[in-house]
Amino acid sequence: MSSQFGNRLKVSIFGQSHGDAVGVVVDGLPAGFHMDKAALARFMARRAPGGTLATPRSEADTPRFLSGLVDGVTCGAPLCAVIENTNTRSGDYADLSDLPRPSHADYPAAVKYHGFADARGGGHFSGRLTAPVCVAGGIALQILQKNGITVGAHIASVGDVHDTPFDPVALTADDLIAPAARTPAVLDPTAGEAMATLIASVAGDGDSIGGVVECAAIGLPAGLGAPLYDGIENRLAANLFGIPAVKGVEFGAGFAAAAMRGSEHNDPYRRAGMGVVTATNHAGGVLGGITTGMPLVVRAAFKPTPSIAKEQTTLRLSNGELDTLTVRGRHDPCVVLRAVPVVEAVTALTILDMLLEEKGEITV
Amino acid sequence: MSSQFGNRLKVSIFGQSHGDAVGVVVDGLPAGFHMDKAALARFMARRAPGGTLATPRSEADTPRFLSGLVDGVTCGAPLCAVIENTNTRSGDYADLSDLPRPSHADYPAAVKYHGFADARGGGHFSGRLTAPVCVAGGIALQILQKNGITVGAHIASVGDVHDTPFDPVALTADDLIAPAARTPAVLDPTAGEAMATLIASVAGDGDSIGGVVECAAIGLPAGLGAPLYDGIENRLAANLFGIPAVKGVEFGAGFAAAAMRGSEHNDPYRRAGMGVVTATNHAGGVLGGITTGMPLVVRAAFKPTPSIAKEQTTLRLSNGELDTLTVRGRHDPCVVLRAVPVVEAVTALTILDMLLEEKGEITV
Amino acid sequence: MSSQFGNRLKVSIFGQSHGDAVGVVVDGLPAGFHMDKAALARFMARRAPGGTLATPRSEADTPRFLSGLVDGVTCGAPLCAVIENTNTRSGDYADLSDLPRPSHADYPAAVKYHGFADARGGGHFSGRLTAPVCVAGGIALQILQKNGITVGAHIASVGDVHDTPFDPVALTADDLIAPAARTPAVLDPTAGEAMATLIASVAGDGDSIGGVVECAAIGLPAGLGAPLYDGIENRLAANLFGIPAVKGVEFGAGFAAAAMRGSEHNDPYRRAGMGVVTATNHAGGVLGGITTGMPLVVRAAFKPTPSIAKEQTTLRLSNGELDTLTVRGRHDPCVVLRAVPVVEAVTALTILDMLLEEKGEITV
Amino acid sequence: MSSQFGNRLKVSIFGQSHGDAVGVVVDGLPAGFHMDKAALARFMARRAPGGTLATPRSEADTPRFLSGLVDGVTCGAPLCAVIENTNTRSGDYADLSDLPRPSHADYPAAVKYHGFADARGGGHFSGRLTAPVCVAGGIALQILQKNGITVGAHIASVGDVHDTPFDPVALTADDLIAPAARTPAVLDPTAGEAMATLIASVAGDGDSIGGVVECAAIGLPAGLGAPLYDGIENRLAANLFGIPAVKGVEFGAGFAAAAMRGSEHNDPYRRAGMGVVTATNHAGGVLGGITTGMPLVVRAAFKPTPSIAKEQTTLRLSNGELDTLTVRGRHDPCVVLRAVPVVEAVTALTILDMLLEEKGEITV
Repeated sequence: MSSQFGNRLKVSIFGQSHGDAVGVVVDGLPAGFHMDKAALARFMARRAPGGTLATPRSEADTPRFLSGLVDGVTCGAPLCAVIENTNTRSGDYADLSDLPRPSHADYPAAVKYHGFADARGGGHFSGRLTAPVCVAGGIALQILQKNGITVGAHIASVGDVHDTPFDPVALTADDLIAPAARTPAVLDPTAGEAMATLIASVAGDGDSIGGVVECAAIGLPAGLGAPLYDGIENRLAANLFGIPAVKGVEFGAGFAAAAMRGSEHNDPYRRAGMGVVTATNHAGGVLGGITTGMPLVVRAAFKPTPSIAKEQTTLRLSNGELDTLTVRGRHDPCVVLRAVPVVEAVTALTILDMLLEEKGEITV
Repeated sequence: MSSQFGNRLKVSIFGQSHGDAVGVVVDGLPAGFHMDKAALARFMARRAPGGTLATPRSEADTPRFLSGLVDGVTCGAPLCAVIENTNTRSGDYADLSDLPRPSHADYPAAVKYHGFADARGGGHFSGRLTAPVCVAGGIALQILQKNGITVGAHIASVGDVHDTPFDPVALTADDLIAPAARTPAVLDPTAGEAMATLIASVAGDGDSIGGVVECAAIGLPAGLGAPLYDGIENRLAANLFGIPAVKGVEFGAGFAAAAMRGSEHNDPYRRAGMGVVTATNHAGGVLGGITTGMPLVVRAAFKPTPSIAKEQTTLRLSNGELDTLTVRGRHDPCVVLRAVPVVEAVTALTILDMLLEEKGEITV
Repeated sequence: MSSQFGNRLKVSIFGQSHGDAVGVVVDGLPAGFHMDKAALARFMARRAPGGTLATPRSEADTPRFLSGLVDGVTCGAPLCAVIENTNTRSGDYADLSDLPRPSHADYPAAVKYHGFADARGGGHFSGRLTAPVCVAGGIALQILQKNGITVGAHIASVGDVHDTPFDPVALTADDLIAPAARTPAVLDPTAGEAMATLIASVAGDGDSIGGVVECAAIGLPAGLGAPLYDGIENRLAANLFGIPAVKGVEFGAGFAAAAMRGSEHNDPYRRAGMGVVTATNHAGGVLGGITTGMPLVVRAAFKPTPSIAKEQTTLRLSNGELDTLTVRGRHDPCVVLRAVPVVEAVTALTILDMLLEEKGEITV
Repeated sequence: MSSQFGNRLKVSIFGQSHGDAVGVVVDGLPAGFHMDKAALARFMARRAPGGTLATPRSEADTPRFLSGLVDGVTCGAPLCAVIENTNTRSGDYADLSDLPRPSHADYPAAVKYHGFADARGGGHFSGRLTAPVCVAGGIALQILQKNGITVGAHIASVGDVHDTPFDPVALTADDLIAPAARTPAVLDPTAGEAMATLIASVAGDGDSIGGVVECAAIGLPAGLGAPLYDGIENRLAANLFGIPAVKGVEFGAGFAAAAMRGSEHNDPYRRAGMGVVTATNHAGGVLGGITTGMPLVVRAAFKPTPSIAKEQTTLRLSNGELDTLTVRGRHDPCVVLRAVPVVEAVTALTILDMLLEEKGEITV
């Protein structure tokens, strides 16, 4: 019943795609952190619409901070950031409340909210709501960095085009940061080109396509998390499913582990200097909900954008007749392109929440 | 930081594998429900150890209800059920706190709890903790049934042996109930035989193997759930990751959706009598975190049991030297066999929680 | 660690007294409610500064709704309302971070936030934060009204001047609404005059004075609430202590009950038409955390405003020397005057939260 | 909707007065704490029934620990303690579901739970449920002690007999511990004798009487807590209202502050060695929800036991007729006598929860 997540760091998202603004309240940020606004702007730019492969809707997405900062430094009070919606064209969506778009939330939202949901542009269900998530997550990434933790993501696949996966054992901060400098955000530029070609082709067909984002974090201490229902897998999975279009989440070997034998899957412990590592990392850095100290590796599967230019048949709810629907508006042929920083944001916020919860005070 | 889940129906699990008892407190059950103890016993029996494919540890697993019932009827007060641990052999585990088993929680738990974790049999991280989950879930299944909702699961795969998947559109209560009558719990008996053969072979090698459980629910009303972070996917994923060995969760087409086009993946709305259905159900019954009224379909990937009879090398923490480890104790070569009712239990508890939250009062 | 309250209706407050804005996010409002903006403005006006007895700081306090509404009707998405701070004079507070005002949160906040707390005007601890609470509460009051529940409050006492108490048995909606039309908000105009005289005298001394607000609700169904830790007393008390300056909360006979005998205090049940009432209402409408159906009666004690014009001695933290402090800024000599609608707001939000939680769907 | 409290330290209470057992699950205790069972038994004995002034119901109340301990040391897993109900006489309560006792929860519970509440001995609403609270709280007191924090309480008043109040400035550990050695638990033995005489007289009349418990904690660091809704006042008040019969909670000067002037109430800061203290402590050690480092002082008002031997008239629900009621069973004429350790337990648990939340790791 809630557009918020977090135990000690509470992130509360508000706004509708074509309302006045979208925004976020972040409660529990440590005081004394000096936000790097330029770095935040660069992070936000990675999610921003634009480019030949993404929606032509163009908005600066510059957050205005209403609270929580004094001279750019966190003061311990909840931080509220607001992004005004300046470029909405609600007329594009006039008919959607009666003619629900297939595989979008229009229909279940109409049922749940008794016809009062804001159907314009998907309302509160829109990918636009990931902009404020990135404001909060961009700040979390900076704080984690100060605590020796780096989070990064790349596009693991679009359709059947696959990028090189992260090396779950030898992953470096450079590997994590590299994809952000490329469009699409991949490790292997050749795979990126193939993805771009595929997306252009799909877009040319008036269609869309899904993909997978792989995210990892290094520098996590061992021992972070909890057994059973409040561990890092539980919380990160729950939060990642809060990104529109995510339909699957897996850690480490994930679904592939289901086809493996124990002798193959088990990660043997080894000594590394004074520390303990594992020779492989099928666990994705988590055992029993608790970090092992190895890189945390998680993947989120995104379905293809449901809003496609192709004509579709759907049901006109008011008369129960089949009708044709052509979705206008501006839509990404592949949300995965812009989802990469969003996955990083959610992962960073989840880790920061757990770090604050278990360490009490951290470096800012 | 918590072995509990649920918003309005709070399920709190306690116990260690080789402690005195395991148990559960369920807070928020509606009053006036007459528990069918025989049906609950049958449900518990599906999870119980035994059979040629499972651990030889044999315990009756009969819960004792300490509270919450008056003459077998829920009274509104928290229900506490306790299952005594009668057949523990802690000697089997004496060395494990220094010699962590690969891919088990021994090592991160030792770090988190500063060496004080109960290492015997996995302690609080053991699959044994799923017994009290099944007590709570078995009750939830009965209450859901009274509200027209049926939940069932089957083994979708063991290794590379696949069962027929649930039909996500035409699924019936009979389909959901059928696997429970078979060992292994499958839709297609031929697949079940192949699974049994594979597991026997793997066990013979002193090894283990992973698998996938597919679970579905029918009879859910459309409109149940919430956008963003507290929807049915968030909550069910979080809770399913609370089952030991789960490494991936997906809804509907899940990871396969990442390779699909929108025109292929979108589920067209159709009229069915007075209601609204979709012609396909790639969504797995959830859009924007809210039920569509179509069958809810979720799959959980289980890694292979980390405790294998084969000799493994691991690290002796006290001296940092490599050492060989032969896990004794009693372990399932494939936890998926016994995980089927556990997945049903967690799914039922999650749905019941949401139903209570949104409907306030339900049929008991 | 959190500036929010509520289980199903989550109210999240943000802002600092002299920052850009204060505001609120309300998550969980039922969809389809048509907000009466004029009534909300009248409610807000009761809290607004001004008048001869209150702070001369004058701000329109008109909320801007950034989300949650479509054409003035709730759409189910979180509602965000922002009130810009237009009339701040931070210079008044320049020295306070080093020279903490006695009995204000300056010092503990400086410790907790390592010197980074926003000290200007009390920052996030300021009574200014009650403005967004009143936005949320004003909406809750309207929704409760549609469900037959009326909430109202009056000043029970200022210093040793006492108003007539609410009649806890025969209380009517007229009684509840009447005080709002008076300044100060009392039942007995004579008591109000005496209070005004006292406050003027205290203000003339450069001093301040405390008081008690009594709040009641009628129309509550019996059976709302829960035993032990999540009942109406627990939740309402917790939330009322969230109003700056509250130091005590009591229900029904409250502290006076401690001096009573059971035979005197017990409220005998009586029949009233088809219903059940009590002949007296020392319980204040709550037994075992659950409503009895009788009027809910709660009182909150407010300490005198710590910011007084009189010179005080305090500690200069930087050198540990005693120093004199003269608080400038604009301060109410008696916060109780403006706290009346705030107590109503918090009470209404708490009740609405419980109503939504237990009834699922309510009238809008 | 929940019989639990706590953010990071979750305390979940279960049981009914005349069911099989009462108990508690405590999730989040730090690992490695060696419980002093003898000290716990002594603490439990202070709450135990018996003595000439209390109910003649006599039970050993020895908890059995089902989980969370290995060789008496906490292992990080949830601790479950169960106290069997050995001495129940349900026949005493046979008629109460139809003939609700005035000012007990019988009637609202019957409404809420549709007639299925366990009416025997008050069921889940009984003072018996404070026994498991004391198990958890007794452990919390021991852990706090290791962190330099001492919590103690005394009977501030019974009827109109008042004990000497705690000195809120100069309070020592000896002051806090002293009352526990006396019966009744007072600072001034003369006041204790007067209370005993009064209670004996009231009991002789077949009546009961209320009272106030004052509790304090010393050794708290400054800076613990949070503004607005999750501070120490909010949380402690909410939890104290979870003790049956509590009708009011106040901190520091509390309701008396409402009659004070700011110049009188404000606590001036003073230097003490390297630290900061206040010359008076009307704040009761809390400003803005955050500890000041001065003694925390809280008082809880208890209503008179509603179960009195005197004949009362009440309503027979089944026919709506007035009827006479003579409560049999065994009841304390003044619950305050046995409530002293319960208030300590709840206070200790609340403080420990906040300490764990903010410090992450503490001394065990």
